[in-house]
Amino acid sequence: MTDMSGRFPIPVVALSSVFDLAGRLGEADHPEIRLLRPEEIDDPASIEVALAWAPTENAFAAYPNLRLVSSIAAGVDSILACPSLPQDAVVVRIRDEEQALMMAGFAAWSVVWCHRHMGTYVENQKTRSWDREFRPVLPSQVTVGVLGFGLMGRACARAIAAMGYRVVAARRSDGAGEPGVELISGPDAPQRVAAQSQIVVNVLPLTEETRDLLDRDFFALMPEGASLVQIGRGEHLVEADFLAALDEGRIASAVMDVFRQEPLPEDHPFWGRPEILITPHKASDTTRSEILRQLAENFAALTEGMAPPGAVDRGAGY
Amino acid sequence: MTDMSGRFPIPVVALSSVFDLAGRLGEADHPEIRLLRPEEIDDPASIEVALAWAPTENAFAAYPNLRLVSSIAAGVDSILACPSLPQDAVVVRIRDEEQALMMAGFAAWSVVWCHRHMGTYVENQKTRSWDREFRPVLPSQVTVGVLGFGLMGRACARAIAAMGYRVVAARRSDGAGEPGVELISGPDAPQRVAAQSQIVVNVLPLTEETRDLLDRDFFALMPEGASLVQIGRGEHLVEADFLAALDEGRIASAVMDVFRQEPLPEDHPFWGRPEILITPHKASDTTRSEILRQLAENFAALTEGMAPPGAVDRGAGY
Repeated sequence: MTDMSGRFPIPVVALSSVFDLAGRLGEADHPEIRLLRPEEIDDPASIEVALAWAPTENAFAAYPNLRLVSSIAAGVDSILACPSLPQDAVVVRIRDEEQALMMAGFAAWSVVWCHRHMGTYVENQKTRSWDREFRPVLPSQVTVGVLGFGLMGRACARAIAAMGYRVVAARRSDGAGEPGVELISGPDAPQRVAAQSQIVVNVLPLTEETRDLLDRDFFALMPEGASLVQIGRGEHLVEADFLAALDEGRIASAVMDVFRQEPLPEDHPFWGRPEILITPHKASDTTRSEILRQLAENFAALTEGMAPPGAVDRGAGY
Repeated sequence: MTDMSGRFPIPVVALSSVFDLAGRLGEADHPEIRLLRPEEIDDPASIEVALAWAPTENAFAAYPNLRLVSSIAAGVDSILACPSLPQDAVVVRIRDEEQALMMAGFAAWSVVWCHRHMGTYVENQKTRSWDREFRPVLPSQVTVGVLGFGLMGRACARAIAAMGYRVVAARRSDGAGEPGVELISGPDAPQRVAAQSQIVVNVLPLTEETRDLLDRDFFALMPEGASLVQIGRGEHLVEADFLAALDEGRIASAVMDVFRQEPLPEDHPFWGRPEILITPHKASDTTRSEILRQLAENFAALTEGMAPPGAVDRGAGY
């Protein structure tokens, strides 16, 4: 089967312990990509490309000639952590401007939810209560700290600044700024941002450096009664420390979209906390066709001897 | 009693049928302003300035020498509609950039609330349900129509565009634009915006032209399943027509902050509609000190023979 350009579609193995990627993404029907489940592959040595999300430990072992492994999203942590990932495979992630804007919309929404106690109005409607007493401080008096300043963090910072909040962003290294956003860089940037932020928005990638970053020490830096918007990765958060920070009033409210275990187990204590709004990992989403389009684009670059535009630094972890 | 500049504070009569303005704003304690209740005034002829909000029909009649009447907010409709308003008094409103940004945050929040069905997550948390099925269309595929393009509308349009939505704004006359915002002007601009908007955000001033604008004919122009963010004035909306549009599925959801009668009566049908989120006229707020600061500034301009910066066009109504 060939596409209209006369090329054969690239066979790609779909490797995930949580999703049937071939079934889900196959519908998107990109002419250059042929997504296959492992059991559909007769000759594993012919497979040069994998699409992966939370692969099992041995997922990559059967494919000796893998050159490219693509995530289905911005995060590659579950791929880099997989022990069977070939040493020399190029790992790529999806860099999607529109997904970053969806994330920005979610982050902006969450900031207002926390700052203006919007949940109270949702509850008050049930008792038909017209209670106007709560007066939020002005947005210019609220500092929102954004952890991470890549494609996602930048879009979030921009959207939050457009609502009049003071925005301070933490990033690892220096680089171009953004109007209306104050930047703090260096290894202790997240802590320095936390110390001045009434609301922290976490969009960091998950790396060995950022795992368990949001812990007791981090919360102790934040102003009393602060809020957390957790849209990075579940593994950034030490859950017991977070619950303690809620109990102590250190943290007053949170919107949480990502968790150490997903789906969040039914008996998890987060569900029952009125201070936390839980969303089921829906802050942003790439479209199926965009994943396949970027996969084809990354593979084309690789075969032409160029750097795939989505390539991550395997050492840095993102 | 004089302030530090040696000037006497300006005596200002506070006229409102709904708030004790002198009590509320007196706390802000601006040195140039002395707010008085009508019963505290011995010589009404000495009063040149009034601060008003929903004044009673005869509120202004006792003060023959009024030169300046200030609203406490951006809207002046209740003042201009008052039959005892002196013909030659200058009417001023509060133009507050920070208030516009608060409005923008509320508008942005409401757009995401409608577009991404955020209320579903609030409800799902109660049953610990991790339901990920809803997939919103991408923000770039959603057109948000902003009705009104003054200080408020402009701030709203900017914040909504920063989240990746397509933004089209309706205004009465031509003028400077805003990056990322498409402008439609002319008398039928609201209708032309409605015809292409999945979400309409109303921030128009209330005038004879805009009263009852959001009626059956207006909703009929909107795409099936559209949403309304009602943060202008309650009198813009024909409530029975809106309920019919909800019943027909023409309108799928709404965030409503303003109502024809406020507080919204306990037996009002809006309270019980799950498609509507009700907030108690809290989309934005000016600070007390900012109202008094602008009142003093407007009066100073008037006494120096200049146009007060907050002056409205009494003919146009805003």
